[in-house]
Amino acid sequence: MNGLDFDMGRITSIIGERSAKKVGLQFPAGLKRSGLKIAKETQERTGAITYISGSSCYGACDVDDVLRAYVDILFHFGHAEMEPIDKVVFIEVRSNADIIPALRQALKMLKGDSIGLVTTVQHVHKLDEAKDFLTKHGKTCIVGRGDSRIRYNGQVLGCNFSVACVNADEFVYIGSGDFHPLGIALATGKRVIVADPTLNEAREVEPKLILRQRHAIIAKALDAKSFGIIVSTKRLQMRLGMAEKLCQKAQKRDIDTHMIFMDEVKPEMLAQFKVDAFVSTACPRIAIDDVALFKKPVLTPIEFEIVLGERDWSEIKFDEILGGTR
Amino acid sequence: MNGLDFDMGRITSIIGERSAKKVGLQFPAGLKRSGLKIAKETQERTGAITYISGSSCYGACDVDDVLRAYVDILFHFGHAEMEPIDKVVFIEVRSNADIIPALRQALKMLKGDSIGLVTTVQHVHKLDEAKDFLTKHGKTCIVGRGDSRIRYNGQVLGCNFSVACVNADEFVYIGSGDFHPLGIALATGKRVIVADPTLNEAREVEPKLILRQRHAIIAKALDAKSFGIIVSTKRLQMRLGMAEKLCQKAQKRDIDTHMIFMDEVKPEMLAQFKVDAFVSTACPRIAIDDVALFKKPVLTPIEFEIVLGERDWSEIKFDEILGGTR
Repeated sequence: MNGLDFDMGRITSIIGERSAKKVGLQFPAGLKRSGLKIAKETQERTGAITYISGSSCYGACDVDDVLRAYVDILFHFGHAEMEPIDKVVFIEVRSNADIIPALRQALKMLKGDSIGLVTTVQHVHKLDEAKDFLTKHGKTCIVGRGDSRIRYNGQVLGCNFSVACVNADEFVYIGSGDFHPLGIALATGKRVIVADPTLNEAREVEPKLILRQRHAIIAKALDAKSFGIIVSTKRLQMRLGMAEKLCQKAQKRDIDTHMIFMDEVKPEMLAQFKVDAFVSTACPRIAIDDVALFKKPVLTPIEFEIVLGERDWSEIKFDEILGGTR
Repeated sequence: MNGLDFDMGRITSIIGERSAKKVGLQFPAGLKRSGLKIAKETQERTGAITYISGSSCYGACDVDDVLRAYVDILFHFGHAEMEPIDKVVFIEVRSNADIIPALRQALKMLKGDSIGLVTTVQHVHKLDEAKDFLTKHGKTCIVGRGDSRIRYNGQVLGCNFSVACVNADEFVYIGSGDFHPLGIALATGKRVIVADPTLNEAREVEPKLILRQRHAIIAKALDAKSFGIIVSTKRLQMRLGMAEKLCQKAQKRDIDTHMIFMDEVKPEMLAQFKVDAFVSTACPRIAIDDVALFKKPVLTPIEFEIVLGERDWSEIKFDEILGGTR
């Protein structure tokens, strides 16, 4: 299986088993371009009518519920199941990239003995290979078991680092990008080495810059007299109870708060509301990744607790959406 | 009542009558800035918790169904009810602008005797006054009755000019912007004079330019070998049956078509799909208003029928979403 193999055999047989006539297909941005080909092949192989979701799709938390209502099966590509949803079948897409060259680089940078191994679903099938490689080089590897939102041992999401709750000296993250490893560094307070199988290189993440940025955002928000508390309309990003509690706490302190429901949290949508700052209870990545785009401070719930004086500045950490015990 | 009076008395009494504890508020872009004030006032007057919809809102066709699921009542501002929806109360917002100065200008430009009077919901309460004024100046006025999507006589929507199905020599449109009057001109083939109470001026709309633009788009699409047929996920913009029929017709002609469900139809969302052209069965305004933004031809269903050879070029007209008999 490689990055372009979408497991057509499995798709075809599921459609056959369920005698599905109407089939929905949902892809994250990086895979949408393959969508038309998959739709065509599905139609040709099974005779089912296909409907593609054209809306954005940021994770397993972001299922197209309107399309789901109109089809017999909705195939959701590229993400691992977070929780079972009626009619939805998750088709994970795995990368065939060789992880060893990047791990070899990472090995040189490791200082500790016990190494926590973490990755995203794209590389999760390679964790055994990674463990073997590092063990052979004298390391003890720990692959943590996540909570109920996590399907595989060692798998992280942008909003969930529960697999990093292990007693390791430091972590190796197999994958691209800085968001996940930064989250692990902030969640655990430990060194995180990125072994990037796309670039075949390793690097240590440096959470100081982002921490400084967050401190600046919090400091700005201290003067805010009104807050918009954003609630996501995406089913598995919706933390309405949390938003309501934050509102109540703020109102007790005579801070003006408004709960605002949103699907896509975009700067131009926020600009329509005249508040001094926002708190996002939606996907934790929004406040962090889009910080440069927002004209007003957008805090995570944890950061808002600091503003409210309920949490100490030293207790800042990445916002996570955690599940129960798996 | 003026443009800033949101009928708080009615809102308060409806909340009281229904003993609503959780109240949703939804506003189109132009009214969102007033949303916080209304939310606060609602909370203070009634004790209900308010939740504001932060997503885009383009019309009565565009109700925030996710928010609706979480509240006892959803107040939807600025649009007239299109069809009853459980829990939704439409709060129309009327303009207090004096229409007479603009009508006086329009009067000078009229050539015919019988005048069709049309407007949007903001000015619909002024149609009697307009009729009186023009009658006094020797004109016969006709205020048409629309179909089931239209609440008031003489009221047009961006997607529905059914009130213009009357035997008038020409039309006077009271309101701003060119989209509605252009639609009427194209739907009826008659002169349309805009009496704009915001600018206090009158002008004749000129549908030739837009027609030429549409002809160019159709001509470009004639070479297309693959089409994305866009289906809106907004409940009263969804024309799935129409999309399916267009797909079948095209496939019979060996044209590759794909049905794509979308909430917001934005250029960057379309760019993710490698087809040669699109057909939008969503809001008719999208193909017309955003023509300059799209990199590939985006046709209306009527225009696609021309491409398929099922309709003559001379039969081009504005796409409308029509209802049944009212």
